[in-house]
Amino acid sequence: MERLREFETIFYPKSVAVIGASTETTKFGTVFLDSLVQFGFKGKIYPVNPQAKEILGLKAYPNVKDIPDPVDLVFITVPASAVPKVLEDCVTKNVRAVVILTAGFGETGKEEGRKLEREIVRISKEGNVRVVGPNCFGVYCPASGLTLLPGANFSKESGNVAFLSQSGGYAERFCQEAKGWGIRFSKVVSYGNACDLNETNFIEYLAEDSETRIIALYVEGVKDGQRFLQTVQKVNKRKPVIVWKGGLSEGGGRAVASHTGALGGRKEIWDAFFRQTGAVRVNSLEELIDTVLIFQHFSSSCGRRVAVVGTGGGTGVAAADACERAGLLVPAFNAETLEQLRRLIPPIGASIQNPIDLGNPWTSPPIYRRIIEAVSSDPQIDALIIVMWHLPLFYARRELLWKFFQQIVEVPITISKRQRKPVVMVLCATPTEVEMLEVEGEWRRIKDRYLAAGIPVYPTVERTTKALANFVAYHKFQKHETDLGLSLEG
Amino acid sequence: MERLREFETIFYPKSVAVIGASTETTKFGTVFLDSLVQFGFKGKIYPVNPQAKEILGLKAYPNVKDIPDPVDLVFITVPASAVPKVLEDCVTKNVRAVVILTAGFGETGKEEGRKLEREIVRISKEGNVRVVGPNCFGVYCPASGLTLLPGANFSKESGNVAFLSQSGGYAERFCQEAKGWGIRFSKVVSYGNACDLNETNFIEYLAEDSETRIIALYVEGVKDGQRFLQTVQKVNKRKPVIVWKGGLSEGGGRAVASHTGALGGRKEIWDAFFRQTGAVRVNSLEELIDTVLIFQHFSSSCGRRVAVVGTGGGTGVAAADACERAGLLVPAFNAETLEQLRRLIPPIGASIQNPIDLGNPWTSPPIYRRIIEAVSSDPQIDALIIVMWHLPLFYARRELLWKFFQQIVEVPITISKRQRKPVVMVLCATPTEVEMLEVEGEWRRIKDRYLAAGIPVYPTVERTTKALANFVAYHKFQKHETDLGLSLEG
Repeated sequence: MERLREFETIFYPKSVAVIGASTETTKFGTVFLDSLVQFGFKGKIYPVNPQAKEILGLKAYPNVKDIPDPVDLVFITVPASAVPKVLEDCVTKNVRAVVILTAGFGETGKEEGRKLEREIVRISKEGNVRVVGPNCFGVYCPASGLTLLPGANFSKESGNVAFLSQSGGYAERFCQEAKGWGIRFSKVVSYGNACDLNETNFIEYLAEDSETRIIALYVEGVKDGQRFLQTVQKVNKRKPVIVWKGGLSEGGGRAVASHTGALGGRKEIWDAFFRQTGAVRVNSLEELIDTVLIFQHFSSSCGRRVAVVGTGGGTGVAAADACERAGLLVPAFNAETLEQLRRLIPPIGASIQNPIDLGNPWTSPPIYRRIIEAVSSDPQIDALIIVMWHLPLFYARRELLWKFFQQIVEVPITISKRQRKPVVMVLCATPTEVEMLEVEGEWRRIKDRYLAAGIPVYPTVERTTKALANFVAYHKFQKHETDLGLSLEG
Repeated sequence: MERLREFETIFYPKSVAVIGASTETTKFGTVFLDSLVQFGFKGKIYPVNPQAKEILGLKAYPNVKDIPDPVDLVFITVPASAVPKVLEDCVTKNVRAVVILTAGFGETGKEEGRKLEREIVRISKEGNVRVVGPNCFGVYCPASGLTLLPGANFSKESGNVAFLSQSGGYAERFCQEAKGWGIRFSKVVSYGNACDLNETNFIEYLAEDSETRIIALYVEGVKDGQRFLQTVQKVNKRKPVIVWKGGLSEGGGRAVASHTGALGGRKEIWDAFFRQTGAVRVNSLEELIDTVLIFQHFSSSCGRRVAVVGTGGGTGVAAADACERAGLLVPAFNAETLEQLRRLIPPIGASIQNPIDLGNPWTSPPIYRRIIEAVSSDPQIDALIIVMWHLPLFYARRELLWKFFQQIVEVPITISKRQRKPVVMVLCATPTEVEMLEVEGEWRRIKDRYLAAGIPVYPTVERTTKALANFVAYHKFQKHETDLGLSLEG
């Protein structure tokens, strides 16, 4: 439990110090301090700077040792060469955990930086102080009011997604972008060079963390491959582990070396990692967001047989192609479903086959509902993808048609509440003209409506199918693991 | 030249009739007529309906034969069973070309529909009238003021992109979405079942059309595979042919059959088609737009060695990975470039290697320019990808930083004007919260600024690299064809 206590200090400190904040507002340490204050950290904050009496309205101390009260967590933002001395002061002050935001260590590839990093590790071991970083952006934990740099505007609401990022930039961007998709976090850690606490340590903690249900990672390289693999293998059975491994290309590997000083690793080894652990593999920030989103909304397992409901023949063709490219199936409906659909869908300019083409966007809401119900009752179908691309058309004639369109929008929500098959929406992205910004506003409101109703929603059919396929693959792996090879869709 | 005259009639009619428009405003034919009027067709328009005297303020005629003046092009919107009779009237009236928008023919898969379609073909052959359709949305030609259904708000500006679409829905959506990306069209044809004029006929015409430089297609199935292949093979040498083939999956094939009555074809055959013709293959509406966009901006050939300039280590890693996944290379810079960069980029928290990490978003515009110039002078580099993701950060502090950010935005424009290597921008998508709509507005304005300056711009690095890779592959194929295997990047 000593171990857990350290992490509790990192995520739920009662008091923090920021060493290197100054009266200069554009300085790294000051910007970080400002983020923390603005976000609303709930404990005490002590700026540390030998030249200042007060910083951002807070009493400043010349040295961490001068702070009269105990300090749980210290953020270090002074230049690399000054970090060892400051870290020793923290040891003297009896601080148990520090976050070193400063760059200029092992990742520079130079002996000077490597030596400084070894020095830090030595001091931390001898002084019994745990280190996050160096070369990182900090920790975000809405429950305690901690935030990353610069994350003053992150959501204050807690969620069940944890994100570990070797890249500070991606820690920040993921939190910023995830906000609009309704993704809410338990903990986010930008862990940089991971000189002490590394990805595996954090995964072990998150596995036991009751606030966390989903664990997402951006990694460039790992410290102890075997231990990482075994940990993910074990944890992934209980909590989905979603991994974006960056730097497997030649140019990407070069970037990894200078970014976090990690070894990028070989593609074959990472292929084997994903095969053995069943961790969910994603390849971009977008796919990471999309995949976390679907895991956040659905928890019970799902097979890969999808029904597609949309308007327009081309829409159906493209959706079915995208499904199968992603590894999903778009099977034929059974006779009973077809019989029901025949009574609901016009015989011309439409199609009752899977993918369904409603023919026109004027299908009345009650009929639309019965169509979706019929499809969702088909035992051949595991999940529904509903495609809507008419928003701009309806918006252009909103005086006449907006009320009707609102009713159409509600139908998938009614259905998803009544039956237990996952419903995923494709609410097609709106045109990118400046003049169409109002339509984009409506798109966002409808997107929020679906998210609030527990329905994952995406702007393209390709993003939808990839996310759903990732979700299905995770559960297929779990089932294989427990069922000795009995596959879900069989 | 008789042949070309028929197409001139289709794209540049001086007078058109719309058979089936009515006083009922929601009727298919009336909506089509309304689009044409609102878009501003430059010639005469004659609504035809036996029950109306006037439709949308235009004098109506009971039959096309009653129109006192000659009619160049007729749009038919009456129910399928009434089409043969109406078509015979057109023959009597000496009309040379018709567009049959009505559905309910071969695509229904029923003998009744097939028979009606055969009947149309017979009348058209005997009466010497060319047919576009049936089961289509019409023709869009800004120069003559023709538009698709419903395309009243399409751009009135002409461009050099032609689009042929078997799907009416995609003809419409492509035009709508392409507008915001600055893509402008010479001609767009939704050709549906292609019972008479088919994709190959149109490609042959567009090959000779001086207004058209790029030919894009959405096809589900083709009428005469061998002739289509030979035509594309020949035309693609002079004008890039970009093809989205829908329906190669099982579910997609099922949808194709009921959508346009076409045979979807086998994947292997289409793979061979692309290998033999060098046509550019795309797999989604998004990739179609992105690819057309880059072809619209660049015309001279380009190799696959890319320099990436961005901020943040993770950004560089992800960009390099995406490049190499798409088939591009991110080579190391030569010694001279590295020497120059060493003087411009800080040694800590940044990287002078390709992909470049500027370290922070505050790089001064003159330094930023010199960095991009240095990279673009490297003989190892064929094209530049510049990544910007800081818009939301700068916007959040716009009182202080907007002017600075505007200067940063201008730098790639200055560079792209002075040197001849292609510059492509990744202007990362903004967060999707309703509250962030203003930032999205700024994103759109900057996007427009780049497009106006001749720089293709995309919201993600993945879309950028795919589009650029498609462009590079096209030119590589062309060079292979003429150079007996001497590859561009060698």
